[in-house]
Amino acid sequence: MAVIGAGISGLTTSKMLADYGLDYATFESSDRVGGNWAFGNPNGHSSAYRSLHIDTSKHQLSFRDFPMPDDYPDFPHHTQIKAYLDSYADAFDLRSRIEFENGVAHAERLPDGGWELETQRTGTRRADVLVVANGHHWDPRYPGFPGEFSGTALHSHHYIDPRTPLDLSGKRILVVGLGNSAADITVELSSRALGNEVTLSTRSGAWIVPKYFGGKPADKYYRTSPHIPLKWQRKFMAAMQPLTAGRPEDYGLPTPNHGFFEAHPTQSVELPLRLGSGDVVAKGDVALLDGETVHFADGTSKDFDVIVYATGYNITFPFFDPGFLSAPDNQIRLFKRIFKPGIDDLAFVGFAQATPTLFPFVECQTRLVAAWLTGHYAPPSAEEMERVIDADHAKYLGHMLKTPRHTQQVDYFLYEHDLRTQEIPAGVRRAARAGVPA
Amino acid sequence: MAVIGAGISGLTTSKMLADYGLDYATFESSDRVGGNWAFGNPNGHSSAYRSLHIDTSKHQLSFRDFPMPDDYPDFPHHTQIKAYLDSYADAFDLRSRIEFENGVAHAERLPDGGWELETQRTGTRRADVLVVANGHHWDPRYPGFPGEFSGTALHSHHYIDPRTPLDLSGKRILVVGLGNSAADITVELSSRALGNEVTLSTRSGAWIVPKYFGGKPADKYYRTSPHIPLKWQRKFMAAMQPLTAGRPEDYGLPTPNHGFFEAHPTQSVELPLRLGSGDVVAKGDVALLDGETVHFADGTSKDFDVIVYATGYNITFPFFDPGFLSAPDNQIRLFKRIFKPGIDDLAFVGFAQATPTLFPFVECQTRLVAAWLTGHYAPPSAEEMERVIDADHAKYLGHMLKTPRHTQQVDYFLYEHDLRTQEIPAGVRRAARAGVPA
Repeated sequence: MAVIGAGISGLTTSKMLADYGLDYATFESSDRVGGNWAFGNPNGHSSAYRSLHIDTSKHQLSFRDFPMPDDYPDFPHHTQIKAYLDSYADAFDLRSRIEFENGVAHAERLPDGGWELETQRTGTRRADVLVVANGHHWDPRYPGFPGEFSGTALHSHHYIDPRTPLDLSGKRILVVGLGNSAADITVELSSRALGNEVTLSTRSGAWIVPKYFGGKPADKYYRTSPHIPLKWQRKFMAAMQPLTAGRPEDYGLPTPNHGFFEAHPTQSVELPLRLGSGDVVAKGDVALLDGETVHFADGTSKDFDVIVYATGYNITFPFFDPGFLSAPDNQIRLFKRIFKPGIDDLAFVGFAQATPTLFPFVECQTRLVAAWLTGHYAPPSAEEMERVIDADHAKYLGHMLKTPRHTQQVDYFLYEHDLRTQEIPAGVRRAARAGVPA
Repeated sequence: MAVIGAGISGLTTSKMLADYGLDYATFESSDRVGGNWAFGNPNGHSSAYRSLHIDTSKHQLSFRDFPMPDDYPDFPHHTQIKAYLDSYADAFDLRSRIEFENGVAHAERLPDGGWELETQRTGTRRADVLVVANGHHWDPRYPGFPGEFSGTALHSHHYIDPRTPLDLSGKRILVVGLGNSAADITVELSSRALGNEVTLSTRSGAWIVPKYFGGKPADKYYRTSPHIPLKWQRKFMAAMQPLTAGRPEDYGLPTPNHGFFEAHPTQSVELPLRLGSGDVVAKGDVALLDGETVHFADGTSKDFDVIVYATGYNITFPFFDPGFLSAPDNQIRLFKRIFKPGIDDLAFVGFAQATPTLFPFVECQTRLVAAWLTGHYAPPSAEEMERVIDADHAKYLGHMLKTPRHTQQVDYFLYEHDLRTQEIPAGVRRAARAGVPA
């Protein structure tokens, strides 16, 4: 068995496979674990900037079987997340099975099943099963505005701090996007000490939610129940929203083109203050780039020295032939975000935007994967998978904006409840019926 | 008549005296108006740092007779406050009566009343009445810790930005204090991009309140009523507090040594986040300075390169002989924060910490002063003044901490209601009884 990647998803998968005593190898292109959370990762796959803190509180974030240290702050810094992943790898002795600087360059499915892998260091390798855990926050996505910008353009993926990789002081800067990275970078660059003029452009707008509410990390209040209709729960949260951060227009942001919870909200306590203090000016969508001038959809225009694109990431599998498997516009149909119908020796881990927390979501995915790899769990037929993919899509995404950013939203609490009480028991029964030991 | 100072208080006084057609001169030591709000004021009396935004929203802040421009943000930058004061001076033609770079070096009360003023440029001048409006946010107050610190110490008064007047990057920094300046400077210096280690020390602790609540400037909700017992209103506000920002301990701050509203709360949305993200460490009081080591009251110690004292200001009248009039520990007994009992040709304007707003408070003080100078208002006897000073002290300060920071707290709404409906009509009746035209 082969696992691609030793970031959060690959590490968690490796830990679960080791727990079950399975024989596996984890292929990692970098010299270290942590993937996105390994700041300055030499494989270029970290999007962390120097000031990055995770936007999920440690109470929600921790692996359920490996709590974060008590002395960690509510919202740990990226260096602390990396240290936590290092101690996770050490605690479960994961490094001995990780092949560092030996990434998978190409993965080819053999005619009778199984995989042939071209690796960086060790040539061709074989695996009966492939688990893809290469992450989806490393290949920068650009909006593709018409026209040409003559200033400097930079994707948030490459942004480190106001001096790295560019001197971003005394500049006219446009930040495109209104996700968490956009908010963080806008706040950092609009610090008066830097002498920048910062404008923020958003196509879809966003609802801003605070990181704290009533003195507690706001996500502590987030707890979806599987026993109440999801629609009612979303209505309740939408009704509570004005109490926390008000409407985006209160701060001069454009009206979102979607209701609350119809897109991933942006967590920032600082951005509303910067907007309300006049340190940041908000604009709608970009219509045209023309030299140093940016024309906005509202008919106004402005000149800039630098554009920072905080416009998200592509889901990319560089080791697959695009004709075999790809995710155009970030669309990829996966059963429980794990199985590709029709390919019975391939699993994906970590390909979701799980609200409110990713780590326990990945943990819960790897439980199913390990049960499958030991033969205790059998997935349904390809036809049944397709039907469930549609149903899950309607459940988790039906209310969401149709954008590349919202192709893999999942509610962690509902997902975990579904896998634990429905899908894994059903798969165990299927495996037993097929004569595999349950 | 002479007015000392052309900051907010002096400008407002000048405007009111001009409105009444009175003959006056305003003596200003600087070459410009604005006082504290004239960033980089050559007379050294501005405490503004580069990133400073006022902590009162423009809705509460505006002079009642001169609203702020509609295009101003909720919380204007200091450059906008200065521009507003400039346009105020222009709109009411105040500059023609301001003697710039001609501050009052010494003011001596003559044996039979009236004043002899030593001025910077124009030698000795006479005035029948003196209005003191020289401000109380320019003479740095230091806490006077025992021991000696061998690193660099800086008062927030002299802090401009992370590069001015010192390079504050890559440093171990202790910020002392937990007022608004302390919070702002702590947030600015703890930006990860600067690579500082920032610790914050507070003796009294503080309650943190947000600048925004439910999308609106939080001070829009602040409206004391003269018709409900003040104690009940304070209890109600204390009960609402947990909904906004929680308890200081939630963020690792020491428990305040006072209840909510027993001291001036600190407005910051960013400081709780920095504490909750581990970017700032909070400590209690300093016990001893010893070389580069600071010993804290809890028995811990830590080494620092720089101490920033954000520990407030002294009320200082450099033009009075200290034996004649001074404010030791910021204590000065003034009737309605205007009149010194026993001196009938002297008034003070702007010597208060008015909650939630200073500008309309000053405006309302100058209404009384102008009525007095035109003979329409007569203050009560010195004995009556002393009695009222005690009563007002109990009303506004009885519930407050006894520190130099809390010697001049006033609730604007109650003060304004008192002057408008009680004190000014009473003074007009007194003046009429004394035979002066009412």
